[in-house]
Amino acid sequence: MTEAHGEVTVDELTLADEFTGADAAAPASADVAEYALWLGDDALILAQQLAGWIARAPELEEDVALGNIALDLLGHARSLLRYAGTADGRSEDDLAFFRDEPEFRSAWIVEQPNGDFAQTIARQLVAATFMFEQYRVLQHSRDETLAAIAGKAVKEVDYHRDHAIQWTLRLAGGTDESRSRMMRAIGDVWPYVDELFRDEPLIDRLDGIAARPSALRTGFDEVMAVVFAEAELEEPRGFLSSGGGRRGIHSPHLGFVLAEMQVLARQHPGVTW
Amino acid sequence: MTEAHGEVTVDELTLADEFTGADAAAPASADVAEYALWLGDDALILAQQLAGWIARAPELEEDVALGNIALDLLGHARSLLRYAGTADGRSEDDLAFFRDEPEFRSAWIVEQPNGDFAQTIARQLVAATFMFEQYRVLQHSRDETLAAIAGKAVKEVDYHRDHAIQWTLRLAGGTDESRSRMMRAIGDVWPYVDELFRDEPLIDRLDGIAARPSALRTGFDEVMAVVFAEAELEEPRGFLSSGGGRRGIHSPHLGFVLAEMQVLARQHPGVTW
Repeated sequence: MTEAHGEVTVDELTLADEFTGADAAAPASADVAEYALWLGDDALILAQQLAGWIARAPELEEDVALGNIALDLLGHARSLLRYAGTADGRSEDDLAFFRDEPEFRSAWIVEQPNGDFAQTIARQLVAATFMFEQYRVLQHSRDETLAAIAGKAVKEVDYHRDHAIQWTLRLAGGTDESRSRMMRAIGDVWPYVDELFRDEPLIDRLDGIAARPSALRTGFDEVMAVVFAEAELEEPRGFLSSGGGRRGIHSPHLGFVLAEMQVLARQHPGVTW
Repeated sequence: MTEAHGEVTVDELTLADEFTGADAAAPASADVAEYALWLGDDALILAQQLAGWIARAPELEEDVALGNIALDLLGHARSLLRYAGTADGRSEDDLAFFRDEPEFRSAWIVEQPNGDFAQTIARQLVAATFMFEQYRVLQHSRDETLAAIAGKAVKEVDYHRDHAIQWTLRLAGGTDESRSRMMRAIGDVWPYVDELFRDEPLIDRLDGIAARPSALRTGFDEVMAVVFAEAELEEPRGFLSSGGGRRGIHSPHLGFVLAEMQVLARQHPGVTW
């Protein structure tokens, strides 16, 4: 086709596919696969939520920033789901589009709706700071595939964290309106922080492989203390959400997120797109 | 803030901002600004539509591809709107979020809804092939800013075009279901092709600066002839849409697109986010 018509080059698509190395590595054990879903589902659900901002943020520059963050997270999700799927022969698409809600392992914070821009930033502040601490430890995992994924992801979530910190300071230090929105937003997301740092029995079985959630709290709190001091905000107190995402118990919002995400793939199962 | 806490680096955000050179160049004339809106609004509206696919396409790989295309288009839109704004002191955000529907200059094809995946691909096939032909000519514009923007954009829309061609062939050559969807999708977008190649009086005033739409049709038709032959599809015939986007007369869909895009910025005009 291309030879007779120099203008039209129909090259094989070379899409971003950075961790194909994972396909060649040893398959994940059932426990490692379960753990990979914790991380992969957090990234997948947060990516879909952030994509809702493209061309809807208050600045075009910010559309681009949130869009890039969403695509970074989708990249992490793909690598992690692909690795999880090696345990039982499922593909990344099987895992993303054909699991039901109780099979997802996302934490409640990433399931919370975008809300206004300040609420999205507060969710980003918590999620990106948590992910940064998690991937920083996971770079040194005994599991080589997880270590490789984390080594790349930590650099990207470092940027996501800086982005969220900058916006938190900008909104908290802006107008009375933006400050009060930022304070409310921090209060809205704070009940979902605790769940991120809870250990489950799975973690005991993955010593040296997983990043122990409870051990990540100190680093997270140090960052938040600096941000809150700089923004002259107080850490909220009060209600903690029950959580349970790592055991398949989800907030009411996840169902809506999955419905949007899965509808097309499920309308045509097995079709070769 | 950063010195006492080595872990927390709050760097100045360095967001993608590739054509800041345009700010320093000569301001656009009113005619050039109007022409820049033709191109910029096409890119902006199409970007927002494509963003709706992130984490909703039938494959995660495709989510990433469409997300990257959307971000490329947002980049083109920002450069073009920023340049248009130099004519009368408006910012890219003023132009994106605070113009009403009759002030937009997008063509009807980019305003058409995503539909199913085949319809999105058909819209991409037409839009990206048109944009490629347009930017290829515009690289040699006497207007240095337009030439610089086009020189970068042409490489990106070349990829977008290849992506759409690959999918058109894959769907047309796939199952009976995917082939019939692709045929229907081409039929659905074809009424909107003609508008892209209509000259308006503005074009006569921009000789050597703008890419004359009617002169782009031959290159477009050559590409389509190759794709249709390879896909064993026939070029649809029949109804042509009235169009009128370049004069501010829009399809019924644009209002919904703008409502979603502009609501947040308009709720808080003048707020420094």
